[in-house]
Amino acid sequence: MEISELGEFGLIGHLTKDIRPQNPETVKGVGDDCAVLSYDEGRRVLVTTDLLLEGIHFDLQYVPLQHLGYKSAMVNLSDIYAMNGRPRQMTVSLGVSKRFSVEDLEAFYSGLRLACERHHCDIVGGDTSSSMTGLTISITCIGDVATDKVVYRSGAQPNDLICVSGDLGAAYMGLQLLEREKSVYNAMVAEAVKKGQSPSSLPPFEPDFSGREYLLERQLRPEARRDIIEGLEKAGIVPTSMMDISDGLSSELLHICKASNVGCRVYEERIPLDYQTAVMAEELNFNVVTCAMNGGEDYELLFTVPLSMHERVETVAGVKVIGHITKPELGKVMVGRDGSEMTLKAQGWNPLKSEK
Amino acid sequence: MEISELGEFGLIGHLTKDIRPQNPETVKGVGDDCAVLSYDEGRRVLVTTDLLLEGIHFDLQYVPLQHLGYKSAMVNLSDIYAMNGRPRQMTVSLGVSKRFSVEDLEAFYSGLRLACERHHCDIVGGDTSSSMTGLTISITCIGDVATDKVVYRSGAQPNDLICVSGDLGAAYMGLQLLEREKSVYNAMVAEAVKKGQSPSSLPPFEPDFSGREYLLERQLRPEARRDIIEGLEKAGIVPTSMMDISDGLSSELLHICKASNVGCRVYEERIPLDYQTAVMAEELNFNVVTCAMNGGEDYELLFTVPLSMHERVETVAGVKVIGHITKPELGKVMVGRDGSEMTLKAQGWNPLKSEK
Repeated sequence: MEISELGEFGLIGHLTKDIRPQNPETVKGVGDDCAVLSYDEGRRVLVTTDLLLEGIHFDLQYVPLQHLGYKSAMVNLSDIYAMNGRPRQMTVSLGVSKRFSVEDLEAFYSGLRLACERHHCDIVGGDTSSSMTGLTISITCIGDVATDKVVYRSGAQPNDLICVSGDLGAAYMGLQLLEREKSVYNAMVAEAVKKGQSPSSLPPFEPDFSGREYLLERQLRPEARRDIIEGLEKAGIVPTSMMDISDGLSSELLHICKASNVGCRVYEERIPLDYQTAVMAEELNFNVVTCAMNGGEDYELLFTVPLSMHERVETVAGVKVIGHITKPELGKVMVGRDGSEMTLKAQGWNPLKSEK
Repeated sequence: MEISELGEFGLIGHLTKDIRPQNPETVKGVGDDCAVLSYDEGRRVLVTTDLLLEGIHFDLQYVPLQHLGYKSAMVNLSDIYAMNGRPRQMTVSLGVSKRFSVEDLEAFYSGLRLACERHHCDIVGGDTSSSMTGLTISITCIGDVATDKVVYRSGAQPNDLICVSGDLGAAYMGLQLLEREKSVYNAMVAEAVKKGQSPSSLPPFEPDFSGREYLLERQLRPEARRDIIEGLEKAGIVPTSMMDISDGLSSELLHICKASNVGCRVYEERIPLDYQTAVMAEELNFNVVTCAMNGGEDYELLFTVPLSMHERVETVAGVKVIGHITKPELGKVMVGRDGSEMTLKAQGWNPLKSEK
C-alpha cells in the first residue's frame, strides 16, 4: 500500500492503533499536541517532537539558517502551549551534509537559542550526525502544566465558544511571496545561462518584499503564543479544548470536533485576517478566506471556552471568538458572509498526502 | 570551518558550550548519556535522543526493516540504562521517501514495538513526514530513576574497579561480515551486467553466514542490558560512573576519565571477547583487541564500582572487571599481555570525523 493513500495522520494512526501503554506514568500517548506523563502528582510532564527535513519543510534557498533555528524551536514550543503548558527543556538533533560549515550551524543555533531564551526553555541534549543529503532537524520539547490545568483536544462541549489568537493565512501568503521571488530569480539565472553568461556575473538579486514584511515575518519567524496562555491564566480561564494551528484552521477544527465528538459553526466574517494577507491574496487571485482556513504554519492557538466565559475571554488581548461548538449531528459548518453554509474540509498543508 | 575539523563531540560541545539552564528542573543538560530532569522530588526523569540516517547509520541493502526498528529502539533504551534508569516512554519520528510502502513501515514498527514491549516502554507519540531521499529515524526515550541512584559519567574515583558487561567487538565484526557479503553480491551483479545478463536472471544470492550467527545478531539485533542494571540492583551496587559502549571501549573510557578527572588502567587479557569475534578477526587479518577497543555498536555497559564491591560485582552474571581507575596524572593506559603499556586513543566509529 502506498503511504499517500493514508496520509500523515492516517499513517500514524495505523501504525500506533493498538498500542496500549504499560506504564502508569503514561497518561496520554499518541493523538494530541503532546504526550502527557505523570511523574509528579501535582503536575503533568508534556512531550512533543517534530521532524523537519530540507526540501519538504524548508527551502534553504530563501530561509536563512538563523531563522530556521528560531522557527524549528517555535514549532515545538507552540505544541507545549497548545496543552496549556510551559516549555522547560529541549533536545535538538541535526543531520548535516558536507556543504554545511560550522558557521552555518552556529547561525542555526543562534536562532534556536534566541527562541529558547525568550520562552525560558533549556537546551539539554541532542545528537549530531553527518547526512548523505541535506539538513535534517529533529527537536523534542518537554514542558509541564499543573495536573488540573492540562487542556486536551477532546474537551469541547456544545455551546462552547470557539476562539483563535492573532490572524490567519499570513504565513501561507509569506510562503507564496518567497516562492514567487525565487521563481523570478531562477528565471533570471536560466536566462543568463541561455545567453552564455555566468550566473555570478548577474547584478545582486533584490527581491521585492516592500510592504510585505509582516507576511515574511509570519513565514520565517513565527512566534509561539506564550502571551495568550498567560493572558488566559490571568483572566482565570482554562479552555475546554485547545490545539495550535499548524495545518490550517479547517483541519484543526476537524481534529477538535473529532476528538471531542462535537460539531462546530464558525463565521467567515469573524475569521481574523491581516491587511497584508488580503492584499497579497487579491494580487495572486486567491480567496483570502480559503488561505486563512487552509494555509498552514500560523502557529496561532485555537481553543474553546464555556459560553459563560464570553465577556472574560474578550478581555484577553489578541483573541477573537469565531463561532461555537454544536452537537455532533449539526456537522462542521462555516457560515459565509451571505448566510450560506459550507461543510468544513481539511485541505491543510500535508506533505504526506498525495495531491489529487 | 569544516565540521570534520571538530568531529561529533567537538561540534556538540562547541554549539552548546555556553548554554546555562534557566529552569530549576534542569539538573543536567548536555554531556552525559541522558539529560536529567527534576519533576519529582523522589526521582529523576531521564531524556535521550538519537538520530539515525540511511546511508550513514544503516544500509537497507542488508538490514531488514524489522531489525532496524528493533535496533533503533535499543540504541535509546541503552542510554537510559546507562544512567541506571528504567525506560518508560518513547517518541518516534520518521521521514520516509516514496520508495517505502505502508508494509515497510509496519515491519519497522513491529521491530520497534517488540523492543519496547520487552523493555516495558510505551510509544507515546511522534511525527511522520515524507522525505526527499531515504529513511530518517529520530527517537527520543524518557525514563526514570530514584534521585539517589542516578549514575553519571563523572563519579569515578581512583582505585574504583572498571567493569564491562558481555563481550566486545562482535557487532563490528558483524558489520564487516555484512559488508563483505554485500561486496560479493555487488560484484556478481556487476559481472552479470558486463556479460549483458539481467541481474534478475541470477540465482538467488545466498550469503555465507554459517557459524557467524552471533556476529550478525550483535550487529542487527543488539540487546540493551536491562539485565545488568537489575543484577547490580539485586547485588546492592550503585556504580560510581557508567555509560553505554556505542563508539568503542577506548572512546568511552576516555569519556569517563575526562568527566571524572581520573586516569585508568585496563588489561588487554581481561577484555571480554567471543570466540566468533576472534575467528572473524583472524580471517580478516584484524587485531581482535583493536576491534574490541574501537569497534562500535556493542551497546554493552561500562561502569566503575568501589574496590570494596569487588566480590559483590563478580556475582553479577555477565560482568567482567577489566582494570581500575587511577589518579589523572597516571594517564589512560592499556597494559598488553606482555606487560607493555599503550596510551588509549579514541579511534571509535564517528561518522562526523574525517578519516585522515
